[in-house]
Amino acid sequence: MNPNPVPKARLFIEAPLSAGALLALDEKPSHYLSHVLRLKEGDSVALFNGRDGEWRATLQMVAKRGVTVQVAECLRPHRLPPDHWLLFAPIKSGRIDLVVEKATELGVRGFGAVKTARTVVGRVNEERLRAHAIEAAEQTGRVEVPELFAYRPLEGWLHGWDVSRRLVVCDETGSGQTPSVALPPHRGQKAALLIGPEGGFTQAELERLRALPYVVPMTLGPRVLRADTAAIAALTCLQLHLGDWDEKPAFRTTGA
Amino acid sequence: MNPNPVPKARLFIEAPLSAGALLALDEKPSHYLSHVLRLKEGDSVALFNGRDGEWRATLQMVAKRGVTVQVAECLRPHRLPPDHWLLFAPIKSGRIDLVVEKATELGVRGFGAVKTARTVVGRVNEERLRAHAIEAAEQTGRVEVPELFAYRPLEGWLHGWDVSRRLVVCDETGSGQTPSVALPPHRGQKAALLIGPEGGFTQAELERLRALPYVVPMTLGPRVLRADTAAIAALTCLQLHLGDWDEKPAFRTTGA
Repeated sequence: MNPNPVPKARLFIEAPLSAGALLALDEKPSHYLSHVLRLKEGDSVALFNGRDGEWRATLQMVAKRGVTVQVAECLRPHRLPPDHWLLFAPIKSGRIDLVVEKATELGVRGFGAVKTARTVVGRVNEERLRAHAIEAAEQTGRVEVPELFAYRPLEGWLHGWDVSRRLVVCDETGSGQTPSVALPPHRGQKAALLIGPEGGFTQAELERLRALPYVVPMTLGPRVLRADTAAIAALTCLQLHLGDWDEKPAFRTTGA
Repeated sequence: MNPNPVPKARLFIEAPLSAGALLALDEKPSHYLSHVLRLKEGDSVALFNGRDGEWRATLQMVAKRGVTVQVAECLRPHRLPPDHWLLFAPIKSGRIDLVVEKATELGVRGFGAVKTARTVVGRVNEERLRAHAIEAAEQTGRVEVPELFAYRPLEGWLHGWDVSRRLVVCDETGSGQTPSVALPPHRGQKAALLIGPEGGFTQAELERLRALPYVVPMTLGPRVLRADTAAIAALTCLQLHLGDWDEKPAFRTTGA
């Protein structure tokens, strides 16, 4: 028998993780492991909780009332992705789910919805977004889940802004700078990306933003991009110039 | 009355476009203009056919059997986006539709599906992909629609490859170079991006590809990206370093 078998799934859980701990999993992960993946006693999974890194755990008991696992060894230490946020005017639910999934894969540390003058979507289902972020974090190999900030108006975000965090505004009027100019390479630079609503920012909002010393307006080429495309493309630019893309991929922990 | 009103829609059509031409639109665009957008006689639309640039046209007759338009002046000349292709192992339909939409917005000139050893999706609905590409081209302000190449095996693509076209292989094993190294800035460089299937390329495929003089293996950071995320992020890198993102957006032609 292989003493360190490859984990057959990656799961985010809330409980503390340490060597030898016995954990009774909740109903949902129990169902997923026993009925969807059909894992058996002795199979390995990888667990992370956003604080203690990633751990291998072994299924001890697969019973009707749930799955119990025993935590074995630490596979990877805790780490945070680059300190980049994605702030976006909410869009319709399928597209916002997609943005959360992609932003999590691209290594955003936190994201939050912004109410602007032309925002038409009134409500943001934060529970749903959090579930998408967890699923994407499991899939992409993160050892934590991006933080989800509370929905608030643009002015609420700007009030008390940490001026050392660059605010990169995707300016679809074309008055911004190209990504290479807007984002000179600077690994470790704190940044937040702001994506406006489908109808764009108002002139007053753009003037307000452009006057702020920490704001950098950025233009993403000659074509009109949907809000979700702009978010994904701009996050890629952030990663390229300010992020951790000079690192190699972590080992794959799923047996797929 | 404004002599040059802002077009209220952008449509791709097949017919030739020239000043004064009278065109009877097909059933689908007729329905869209008259029943979905509820345009009236005298309203303006923008038309493009992939050969003659973009033209303003005025609705002449909105009747039960269809809409007739008269072509007015040319709004923008014909142009092609950077000579970049996206080659991808087919993935499930929702995700492939998304990739076609985003790739069109990001300015890909052509795309095609590739059969690899681990490709599990056997059929590619080219008509459906073409419809998505047309819709995205209308939305994003292109004056043409990206070309859709026939589905074929990897070896079929490599056979007779134009060696002046760089083949950028998204290598999720981590042995590729970072985008900045893999894609030194070179506006006008012909390129194709190759994205493997969900299970990745086989070792034999990777060795075959890496041995080719025009292949550049590229790694997109330390996290595991889904195939669709990798395609969108890698196309963004291509645009940044080899494409036209130093240009400003074209004027918006929709009245929205």
